[in-house]
Amino acid sequence: MEMDFQLDSRLSSDCTVLGELPSGELLLLHNNAAVVWFIIVPKTDKTELFELPPEVQSALLEQVNLLSAHLKEQHHCDKINIAAIGNIVSQLHIHIIGRFKEDPYWPGVVWGQPTTKSWSEAELQNLTGKLQAKQIISG
Amino acid sequence: MEMDFQLDSRLSSDCTVLGELPSGELLLLHNNAAVVWFIIVPKTDKTELFELPPEVQSALLEQVNLLSAHLKEQHHCDKINIAAIGNIVSQLHIHIIGRFKEDPYWPGVVWGQPTTKSWSEAELQNLTGKLQAKQIISG
Repeated sequence: MEMDFQLDSRLSSDCTVLGELPSGELLLLHNNAAVVWFIIVPKTDKTELFELPPEVQSALLEQVNLLSAHLKEQHHCDKINIAAIGNIVSQLHIHIIGRFKEDPYWPGVVWGQPTTKSWSEAELQNLTGKLQAKQIISG
Repeated sequence: MEMDFQLDSRLSSDCTVLGELPSGELLLLHNNAAVVWFIIVPKTDKTELFELPPEVQSALLEQVNLLSAHLKEQHHCDKINIAAIGNIVSQLHIHIIGRFKEDPYWPGVVWGQPTTKSWSEAELQNLTGKLQAKQIISG
């Protein structure tokens, strides 16, 4: 299954691939820099979370926890939004989004909203460096 | 903590309490009958998933899995949307929503949309009966 894995083209155009998590999933950053929007993409052809084996679910949950704590500690987000939706992109992916009370969509959700701000190259490097320093992704 | 637990007033007015899950969380049904919208409310004063002890997270994940499978099998939903958001209602709650390609919001998300249809008393009884038959909630 993993050998055939290809990132969905919509995810690929909306996001930057930051690297791989220790358990093998891709970690993406959504290009909308108004929030800090991580997306985990497990290498699977299943489309629903409950269809994944329990050990894969546990590994995913652990990564969601690490990224949530990271958003609080490093980005000082006011709230973490976590979701698996997949109505438009069926490839299984999990959103972990750091929200701010001053972001342009608050308190609404981010899905379906226009991108209002892009990450600069320096910001991207800084953000990636922090994840590598914590070994959330490999360096 | 549990003794002081009170359901948030917004959740209480938007939803019907269906019962308690085996691990003690409340199971709600959102009053918007255009979709099948379950909400699990753990009895905690934490507001982020990652702040819950691992064993509580695992129990929650198990219930999310059971409800997701139930939505597929019993309600023949096309997609399951799972989310913990909490930007408006800070009391921790997890959405497990059965979506249909013909529902009025598809493929958009349900949050922030108007309620367009209510559950009848008979539909509510039927839905509750199915959950009890599967011992997802107690009878």
